[in-house]
Order: sequence, then C-alpha cells, then structure tokens
Amino acid sequence: QLLLKLKVDYKQMTGQDYKAGCPPSENLIVSNNGPAADDCDGEDLVDPWNVSASSTKGVDYDKLIVRFGSSKIDKELLERIEKVSGQRAHHFLRRGIFFSHRDMHQILDAYEKHKSFYLYTGRGPSSEAMHVGHLIPFIFTKWLQDVFDIPLVVQMTDDEKYLWKDLTLEECHRFTVENAKDIIACGFDVNKTFIFSDLDYMGASPQFYRNVVKVQKHVTFNQVKGIFGFTDSDCIGKISFPAIQAAPSFSSSFPQIFGGKKDVPCLIPCAIDQDPYFRMTRDVAPRIGLLKPALLHSTFFPALQGAQTKMSASDPNSSIFLTDTPKQIKNKINKHAFSGGKDTVEEHRKYGGNTEVDVSFLYLTFFLEDDEKLEKIKEDYTSGALLTGELKKILIETLQPMIAQHQERRKQVTDEMVQQFMTPRPLNYKF
Amino acid sequence: QLLLKLKVDYKQMTGQDYKAGCPPSENLIVSNNGPAADDCDGEDLVDPWNVSASSTKGVDYDKLIVRFGSSKIDKELLERIEKVSGQRAHHFLRRGIFFSHRDMHQILDAYEKHKSFYLYTGRGPSSEAMHVGHLIPFIFTKWLQDVFDIPLVVQMTDDEKYLWKDLTLEECHRFTVENAKDIIACGFDVNKTFIFSDLDYMGASPQFYRNVVKVQKHVTFNQVKGIFGFTDSDCIGKISFPAIQAAPSFSSSFPQIFGGKKDVPCLIPCAIDQDPYFRMTRDVAPRIGLLKPALLHSTFFPALQGAQTKMSASDPNSSIFLTDTPKQIKNKINKHAFSGGKDTVEEHRKYGGNTEVDVSFLYLTFFLEDDEKLEKIKEDYTSGALLTGELKKILIETLQPMIAQHQERRKQVTDEMVQQFMTPRPLNYKF
Repeated sequence: QLLLKLKVDYKQMTGQDYKAGCPPSENLIVSNNGPAADDCDGEDLVDPWNVSASSTKGVDYDKLIVRFGSSKIDKELLERIEKVSGQRAHHFLRRGIFFSHRDMHQILDAYEKHKSFYLYTGRGPSSEAMHVGHLIPFIFTKWLQDVFDIPLVVQMTDDEKYLWKDLTLEECHRFTVENAKDIIACGFDVNKTFIFSDLDYMGASPQFYRNVVKVQKHVTFNQVKGIFGFTDSDCIGKISFPAIQAAPSFSSSFPQIFGGKKDVPCLIPCAIDQDPYFRMTRDVAPRIGLLKPALLHSTFFPALQGAQTKMSASDPNSSIFLTDTPKQIKNKINKHAFSGGKDTVEEHRKYGGNTEVDVSFLYLTFFLEDDEKLEKIKEDYTSGALLTGELKKILIETLQPMIAQHQERRKQVTDEMVQQFMTPRPLNYKF
Repeated sequence: QLLLKLKVDYKQMTGQDYKAGCPPSENLIVSNNGPAADDCDGEDLVDPWNVSASSTKGVDYDKLIVRFGSSKIDKELLERIEKVSGQRAHHFLRRGIFFSHRDMHQILDAYEKHKSFYLYTGRGPSSEAMHVGHLIPFIFTKWLQDVFDIPLVVQMTDDEKYLWKDLTLEECHRFTVENAKDIIACGFDVNKTFIFSDLDYMGASPQFYRNVVKVQKHVTFNQVKGIFGFTDSDCIGKISFPAIQAAPSFSSSFPQIFGGKKDVPCLIPCAIDQDPYFRMTRDVAPRIGLLKPALLHSTFFPALQGAQTKMSASDPNSSIFLTDTPKQIKNKINKHAFSGGKDTVEEHRKYGGNTEVDVSFLYLTFFLEDDEKLEKIKEDYTSGALLTGELKKILIETLQPMIAQHQERRKQVTDEMVQQFMTPRPLNYKF
C-alpha cells in the first residue's frame, strides 16, 4: 500500500507512470523551476522567452546554477579545456561569459580518448536583423570548432518562430536564410558545418523525424507545462515543439554526417535561457537509449539600457544591430548605453564609476579581447581617471570596425554558399 | 463590457482568442461530443480508439449523425452519385454501410464542372494481421477510384501506432509495409495511388510538414482535449498527432501529385470513428486558407461476438483475419458468430430468426453482392425456413473464396511493387 501511494505521488509530481530503472532525476528539479516558480518568489525570471533580473547588476548567475542544477565552470575545468585543446581558453571562458556547464568533463574525457564529439547550437529567426548579442554563441562555437576540429550543426527554428509569432511560414523561412548569412559570416568552415531550417530538414530526413517522435512519446503535457509554463490554451504546435529542439542533440538525427552512429556525444553552447529545452532532453535521452547532450551556458548579452534584461531584436534602441552604420553605433551608445558613472565630472573624478552596471564596460568584456587593456580601463574608470564619454568612445571604436568587418564578410556570402551550408551532406572531422 | 464578457466566454468555450471572421462553428459542436460527453450520458461511445454500443443492434447511427453534425446519405444523394459517376451505386452505399457524409454534394458539383478531386484514406498499422473489417474502406475507396478516375493517397499512421502502443518504430514501420501489401491486393491502380508511411513521408516532404505546422498553430490543447479526450498526462506526441492526420486533407501536402495546387478538393472515405480528426480539420481549414475535406462515413464492421463493438485486431476470436485458413474461417464462424436464431430448431422454425442482431447475416450485407440472394436469405431466416447453421454455411462459403483470392493476390505483391506504390511521384488523373 505504501508502494502504491508512492507510485501515485510519483505520477502527480512527474506526470509519468513509475517505471523501475527510469529515474526522472533532473526532471524533478525542472518541475520546481518552471516559470510559475519564477513568478511567485520574485527571483530572476529566466526562460526561453523571457529574461528579467531583479537587480541592476543583472541576473544572479550563481543562484541560477543552483536553481537549474548545472555546474559552475571553475578554474579546474578552464585549465582542463586549455590542456586538452592545447589552446589558451577563449576570453568568453576566462571572463565568465560562458559560466556554467553540464557534463563538460565527460566530453573532454572522451576527446582525450580520441573519440570525437559534435557541436549543436541554434537560432530562432524572428526577423532579418540580428544584433551583436546574437553573435556571442556563434563566436564561441566557431572557437570550439577550430580548437577541437569537430563538426557543427546549427538549427534555425523557423517552425518555432511561425508558431510563436504573427509571421507566415514564408517570412520565417526567409529570415532563416538571411540569418544564416550572418552566421556564415562568423567564419565557419563549410566542410565542418551544417546549417538547417526546421521547415526544410524535417521534410528531408526521416531519421530526424524519428527522433522527434521518440522524444514526443516520452514527454507528457504535464512535464512541458512544468518546464515551459504552457497552458491549455496554447496551440498543440508549441506544446510539441520542445521535441524538435531536442532532436539535434542526438547524432542519429544526422545520418549523412555520422553514418547512422547513435553514440557521438553532443556539446551545446547556448545562452542559459535555452537550458530548459536541454534539461528536458537530458531527462528523455536515457529512456530512449540515447546519450545526454553536454552543455556550456553563457550569460545574457545586456540591453543598452542596462543588465536587467537582455537585448531584444524587437526594440531597435535596445540593441546594436549587425546592419547599423558607424554613425548609428555611435549615436546609440552615446544616447542609450546605461552609464555606471557619476552625475557630474567632479563627482566622477572624486568617486569613480561603477563597472558592474556600466553597459559600455560590460560590452567591452565581450568584445575587447586584450585582457591588459580591459584591466586598465576598469582601473581607470573605477578610480575616476576615465570619464563615461571616454569609455563610450573606446566601445564605439571597438564596435565600429568589428561590425564593419562583419558587414564586409556578410556581403561576400553568396546564395550558393548558403545553399552549400544548408545542404544535408557528409562533413569532415578528425576521428 | 458585454462584448468583453462575450470574448471571455468565447475563449472558455473554444480555447481560442476571438477573431472576427473566424467562426469556430463545427468546433463548438465538437466540444460537446468529446469522450467526456459520451461517458456521462450513457450513449454509444465512438471515438478513434473506442467503439461500444449500448444496444445489441449496435451503434445508433441516426443519433450519431445528429451528434456529429454530419448528413445522412439519402436517396437523392445516392441517385446523384449514380448520375454523376454513370455507375450503379456500390452495395455499401445501397445498403447504408456508408451512411453519412459531409459536403459530398460539393464534390459532385465540382466534378460535374470537370474539376477533379482526390481520395484520402488511411490505416493505423498496429499489427501484421489485418481482418476483413479493415478491408471495408479500401474496397469502397477502390470503387470510388475506378468510377471517378481520380488519384488516391493512403496514409499509414505508423507514428500514431508508435505513440499509442508499446511498439518500437521499427515494428510500426514493418507493419506499414506488411499492411500496404494487403491494401495493394485490393486492386488499386499504381498509376493513381500513393501509399505513404508517416515516418518516411514526414521526412521526405517539406510541404507536408509545413501543412502539419500550420494545423498545429491553429489548434489548442483545449480543443484536442474536447475532441479526443486527451489529458495532461498524455505525451506531447499524442497531443500534436491530430495535425498529422489532418495534413493529407490538403492537396498542397502532395506537390509531386498536384504540382503545388492548393485547391484540389479532397474526399475522405472512412469509418465514422475517424470523424473527430476531420471535424477538427474542417474547423482549421478556412483559418489557414485551405479547403475543407468532404467525407463519406461507414458504419463499423461488427465483432463476431455481436454488433455492440467493432472487430479488434488484438482479439483473434473477434475477427476473421486475412491470413485465416478455410478451416479457421469455418470454425470461427461456427463457434463465435453471434446468432439471431432461436434456442431450438422447433422454436426457430416457429418464430424465425432476427437478422438485425445476427452477425452472420450482418457480414453477408457487407460481402454478398447479390441483392436478390441477400433478400431471399433475410426472408427465409426471418420466417424460420433457414436455420442458423445453414446461414453460417452461406457466410462461410462466401468468405472462404473471397479470402483465398485475397491471399492469392497478396502473394503476387512483390517488394518492388510496394516500393513503387510508396515512392512520392506524379500520378495520372483525368482533369
């Protein structure tokens, strides 16, 4: 009778019948981390559609690690990445921009034993315009691809955008192609990179659909309600979509790349707001006989107005777009970038500025690669030697050439190149 | 304020936000016909997974027409079908086995104006073994294909069976191929017929997936809950599956057949338990700019034990299988076919038998094409001149050669033929 009661309780908590040997472990954690939980306790709100912090310093990422049940990227892991890759860690890693992970040690264990893995990241193409924040996962993913010499799949969730936004299928697909050009402009190796539109690839790969259905069989509405906060009046497309974002985590979804191998480990670099999808994926994986993907999580790229929210493509003044002219970049930063400086020059010289909330400084941590220069700027701003206007000027002069170069590279991306990247085909990789 | 209240009420009833010009018409009817409604008022239970009648005469089909909001196939429609096709109506039509329809007059209107339509039917491949009841929609569909000279698509819902049953993807796909052989053995024209596995075709046709997503965007969980009785602990695959059964109702799902035309009307011959899927489809169609499919509904093929339930592939004694030997057919009918005769020969001679509940007689209405012979049997059985054993003998002698011939034709179906029928390709048709 006790056993029976336990089974009933189990079902209420997990939405699944109890099966011996199928622990829902991570999933239980998930149920306590849904948007509902976020709403009531006044903590930072972080899910795939919303990010808002309760503090001006932005989201408390240490708390998020505890809530999401992931692990901090510590000094030991950093050193291991450097040892295994034989390269100095990317400044996104050194500066804690990629700050959290799941199972990264297992990926490195396998790689040390000459077992390849692959990278999976993605983009929701909700408009033509991408902003600098959208580049973060791609810049980092390119670095991973280069240092580990491994294949990469990039999912363009045009079906998701169709389901969530007031857009037609044709618009979403067009945004996929336009955004793919920006992604290709990041310098990915066409011999190691497959970019795919869900709308196209679902209809081009029976193996991909098979994995989608497998995931869909093993996740209940109760579970996606707990994880994503879906309600009874959400459309059935939204409710089943998480399975489509899950499927690329399994190498068998890409037989053209992995020759039908089911056991090539997957590493997903993404912003931490995407973690709910992969907590779900990791919960399902062992129940369908597949490997759990590993993850590397980044912080959010803050809006110009401050770190309480992330950049949004729908508010033009919150973001620096990849299409902005040098003049627009200059004006936006001067006008909108939240300053951590004091109200008057006198006060600033006397008390110094606050780099923890200063958006211009935060942006430099993303894009100024020179550690010494950055350290010097921090010292000078904190001491008051550097004024807000001067700090903004440094950022402007960092971003203007970076974006101009991106525009130049993007111009050179032809339709044929896009076609090539988006054609299902074998890729070259090390092992 | 009244308007606001109306909108709230509307949302509660339909699960959708109110939009001017998008009537939920049929859908509202649907909400009152879900399994929940069936459960409480003790009426016949009819949904895609359950059929059970409260009377020994079987389901009350007239009541079902009212409940489902379809139309009776009346004398006028019968005569019109004969006029337009230039053929005597099939005995399934003459005898009320196909008894209900939606928009069949519109199909005939279009056909008279030399506008083609296409047929769509399907099968859920839950095992290798099909029984005689499974042939009904295919026998009738073949007749429609022949008299109207039009293309046919046959959906094998192997993904559905994977989601609902304790089967692997490989098993479901194998059942698809095995069942396809039985379907091909019904005599379909390979130049006019496309049979597809969902597991394969979803991954082979971006246009099919696009229609699935369109449907998925326009149906809420509330709606499928009302229509199909899904609950929060159902997997997300079941919840979104109805969109996959809906999509073949739209000619744009088959660009290889219709060259991208969105406006070729679709006629679906099916057993009435599949109607919930198409009520949903017809509700969605105008909201995604596509045509509502028309339907022809059949009654259920009764189990040997009586008309209260339909034949089931999982209970071997409830069905005559297409693989049964002449001896098995004889034994099953003699042993299990529910009799409408009296307890003793004396009583039977005196009072006569009841053809309304006699399963052997019911089966003859399906498979004995000769109207006069059937009428004579009815008279003799009702008068008591014909004994139950003699009636069973007539059925046995009707089914044995029919099934032997089916087995013979099935043996001649090669793997290459199956391959041919299941390859996406252009089809030949009249207009």
